[in-house]
Amino acid sequence: MTTTVFEFPLKEKVRNYLRIEQLLVQLKTASGNSQSAIHMYFFEQLFTLLDLFDRIDVRSDVLKDLDGHEKNLRYWSRHPNIDSSALEEALNSILDLRKRLKDSRKFGSLLKDDKLLSSIRQRFAIPGGTCGFDLPNLHYWLHLPVTERQPIMKGWLDNLSVLEEAIATSLSFLRERGHFHTTTAVNGFYQDVAEDKNELIRIRYQSDQGYYPTLSGNKYRFALRFIWFEPKDNQITGVDNDVTFDLAAC
Amino acid sequence: MTTTVFEFPLKEKVRNYLRIEQLLVQLKTASGNSQSAIHMYFFEQLFTLLDLFDRIDVRSDVLKDLDGHEKNLRYWSRHPNIDSSALEEALNSILDLRKRLKDSRKFGSLLKDDKLLSSIRQRFAIPGGTCGFDLPNLHYWLHLPVTERQPIMKGWLDNLSVLEEAIATSLSFLRERGHFHTTTAVNGFYQDVAEDKNELIRIRYQSDQGYYPTLSGNKYRFALRFIWFEPKDNQITGVDNDVTFDLAAC
Repeated sequence: MTTTVFEFPLKEKVRNYLRIEQLLVQLKTASGNSQSAIHMYFFEQLFTLLDLFDRIDVRSDVLKDLDGHEKNLRYWSRHPNIDSSALEEALNSILDLRKRLKDSRKFGSLLKDDKLLSSIRQRFAIPGGTCGFDLPNLHYWLHLPVTERQPIMKGWLDNLSVLEEAIATSLSFLRERGHFHTTTAVNGFYQDVAEDKNELIRIRYQSDQGYYPTLSGNKYRFALRFIWFEPKDNQITGVDNDVTFDLAAC
Repeated sequence: MTTTVFEFPLKEKVRNYLRIEQLLVQLKTASGNSQSAIHMYFFEQLFTLLDLFDRIDVRSDVLKDLDGHEKNLRYWSRHPNIDSSALEEALNSILDLRKRLKDSRKFGSLLKDDKLLSSIRQRFAIPGGTCGFDLPNLHYWLHLPVTERQPIMKGWLDNLSVLEEAIATSLSFLRERGHFHTTTAVNGFYQDVAEDKNELIRIRYQSDQGYYPTLSGNKYRFALRFIWFEPKDNQITGVDNDVTFDLAAC
């Protein structure tokens, strides 16, 4: 039995957070590997992340989120039945993170100044344009002993650690906001009204039954449909039996 | 002591071969890995390869090469001092490969018909656009057991095996054409006239001395310059001492 969680953001901000979260996972996986071919992937994903920072202002989204968390925590700390020491701790870590965020430069700006990274970044925009003869300095780097390469990659990732912590904090507050409850998609279909603050719909189900969920929606309402992974007669086909799944609106 | 070979193609055809060779290595490395994050890389590189096939006609380049090899082998087989059985074998494998190439469809065309691949390919053109919510069917696939995913990837790669063999044959004939001889780059600089048939310059040297070679040139002449990996005073700086290296003009 395989249980899989699918997450569908209802807001652009959350979409960006999830993209960054995925890119960071890929960066860590690639840098933890010892093969040169996989280190090429590290560079690709790193430049994708830097491109993302050029387009969107994650920093102010995250800061706004932290302000909201602070307000909430202060509100709850006045509640008599709450463990105030745990709350105090959470509040302090939020305040500390906010301070470090405000002190830090724009995400990735130090990486943009890195000599190797800035000298190879442009070629990575050309698919397949990163051969040894395109980038002999990268070819040289990829032939350094892996014990030299891995600390360098780790150093680059360390530049992103405040970002990583901020995104992880925002997403963890968001995910904890909703609780899974079991429900049924009648004929593979389910729709609901999104509540005022819903930003993320999470679906958990037994994914070894040959179908996957798709979701369309916005901050007002959303519709969920389960689709067979194997198309039938070359057509994308919806599941037409009832599907039991867990839903969390966060 | 680390010895590294740098290869610099003098012709567009060879540039394409080397790009394809590198992409195939990356595809095999990624598909041999068991982590989902690395399997994402498999898709990226596979689509890069398919894009390349849309732009260039590798097939006719490779066929032309094979015709040339056939002609050469037939010429040598008439030479009295040649081991004709080894030659016969080489000739047969060339003829067999050429037949399979002619029988096969356009490179990658079967992959373009694959349902999963064709349904996700477009999103891979958008950097960072391949999250679970962008491509729930891919997210589903990535959660299949790795024992199911790896044979599927192997099946896709099998579609490219004739291409792989053809490129490997062409590049191996090409590389064997030149022999390394030791020479010196005076003040880090070396230039030479390319002979009529030279298509690839290969440089072999001790790469743990902090510099890498760059080459500019065409089919008439080429110039080689060794560059310090660490820029000095933020400037790309050429090596100004003499560098001993091995050169093969293929």
